[in-house]
Amino acid sequence: MNKFQVTILGCGSAIPTTMHNPPSQLVDLNEKLFMIDCGEGTQLQMRKFKARISKLHSLFISHLHGDHIFGLPGLLSTLSMLGRTGDLHIYAHKEINLLIKPFLIYMGKHMSFRIKLFPLNPERQELLFENKSIRIFSFPLKHRIATNGFLFEEKESPRHIIREIIDLYQIPLKQIPEIKEGADFITSDGTIIRNDILTSPGNPPRRYAYCSDTAYAPEIVPYIKNVDLLYHEATFAESELIRAGETYHSTARQAAEIARAANARQLVIGHYSSRYNELGTLLKEAVAVFPNTELAAEGKVFEL
Amino acid sequence: MNKFQVTILGCGSAIPTTMHNPPSQLVDLNEKLFMIDCGEGTQLQMRKFKARISKLHSLFISHLHGDHIFGLPGLLSTLSMLGRTGDLHIYAHKEINLLIKPFLIYMGKHMSFRIKLFPLNPERQELLFENKSIRIFSFPLKHRIATNGFLFEEKESPRHIIREIIDLYQIPLKQIPEIKEGADFITSDGTIIRNDILTSPGNPPRRYAYCSDTAYAPEIVPYIKNVDLLYHEATFAESELIRAGETYHSTARQAAEIARAANARQLVIGHYSSRYNELGTLLKEAVAVFPNTELAAEGKVFEL
Repeated sequence: MNKFQVTILGCGSAIPTTMHNPPSQLVDLNEKLFMIDCGEGTQLQMRKFKARISKLHSLFISHLHGDHIFGLPGLLSTLSMLGRTGDLHIYAHKEINLLIKPFLIYMGKHMSFRIKLFPLNPERQELLFENKSIRIFSFPLKHRIATNGFLFEEKESPRHIIREIIDLYQIPLKQIPEIKEGADFITSDGTIIRNDILTSPGNPPRRYAYCSDTAYAPEIVPYIKNVDLLYHEATFAESELIRAGETYHSTARQAAEIARAANARQLVIGHYSSRYNELGTLLKEAVAVFPNTELAAEGKVFEL
Repeated sequence: MNKFQVTILGCGSAIPTTMHNPPSQLVDLNEKLFMIDCGEGTQLQMRKFKARISKLHSLFISHLHGDHIFGLPGLLSTLSMLGRTGDLHIYAHKEINLLIKPFLIYMGKHMSFRIKLFPLNPERQELLFENKSIRIFSFPLKHRIATNGFLFEEKESPRHIIREIIDLYQIPLKQIPEIKEGADFITSDGTIIRNDILTSPGNPPRRYAYCSDTAYAPEIVPYIKNVDLLYHEATFAESELIRAGETYHSTARQAAEIARAANARQLVIGHYSSRYNELGTLLKEAVAVFPNTELAAEGKVFEL
């Protein structure tokens, strides 16, 4: 089974604390690193947690609030100093250009690679990236400014050959690939051996969804239905419900409601307000609604 | 005696490591914090080392290489979120405007305070700031782009009253201030009591100089003559002397040569290249020329 894991680099919010860095995560899909958000200090967190910067494939920026982007200049500059040559694709709101262009002009003659910006659609779901094994989608969240969530989805894997049956019918090696794709086998006497006799289903495709920052928004549920892992912001405890509404953030209970409505397998909460020194209340309030909830923490790795 | 101390927030160089953050320092002069340079993660380092962000007086940026400025957006944004109202003065190369303006536009409606930019003169020494107890100067360094060093200088303090003599002559309280400033005293019978009988010299003014980044440049010595503490970059060991010259950086030995020529009391070296996992060689090479040398380290405080 391919590697599919999520590493939390930062799970704080606007004001960093000594406990939590600004938002950033790495999705490691089969040794390619997809970064979501890039708060100040993200490149330092990568080093701290021994993430290989050379494996960085592309960047996905949920929205243009400072805590999600202030690590970009440093990261881009370091990538260049380390001699990256491959294009770097950045998926973000189109105005990100205004923010990073001055830095690029400044570093202009030194940049060792090209940056390609792909504007996100803040209105509807969109396929951003696809290769032979995965698809990455964006979808709209509900925040003070245009904000997108992201869905990382494995493609259906080929069916597994049942070795004993293959041996039994002495199926030639060159026919194996098409049988994996679903073909039947016809024996020399013309008997059809149905594919579901020859194979068992492939691994079920795994899916990871990232929802931050967002107000409580049940309308996002269709985009994240049945995900294996859901990261949903939980900036506030229930005691700050009104403040959560005003600032277009969620409470831990609301994050759990979304996880339950989406029938997620596991929920991870984060984007904690700097007012919380301990997170027991947030966890308790989420678990009451959705038991399989875990707190995000810097350096924590979630395997799918 | 007034507080005069330097806290190292970061003493690495262009590529951050797990050991060293990008450059930044705080000069605490009588409970006012003057920040020199602001690499990525500086606001996080302030929190880590419990520096009071509310005491931040002004910023001094040596030059516009990324490792010295990429912490600015995050710091400015946090200052605003915490509700700073006083103007923030930033002394830097005039083009810093191009780099931070887009962030300011973006944060525009939210900024709680005004930023005033003061362009540095990259050609000659200049008085940047003065109040009743200190003066801050910039002076040119020798780097790939326009770069300035900074000198923080106490003003001469008033002479100390010698209590016993004052009592002996029954000098009225209201005359004490002028005597502290150097006036003589005339007794009722017309005898002149010379000031140097009445007072002893005030504390000698203390001086701190920051020289980073710079090639070996003996021409800076006049600006930093007789400082109590000299921070001088030592990016490389002597084995990288040629590379130091090419990149307009210094070796540890060269930093020590400058300290000796300037007759500094103490030298602190920093801005270590990321290639050094241990700094014993750098320290040894500096100490051979200037014994009173110390290695900078994150969180270290130097009292003047």
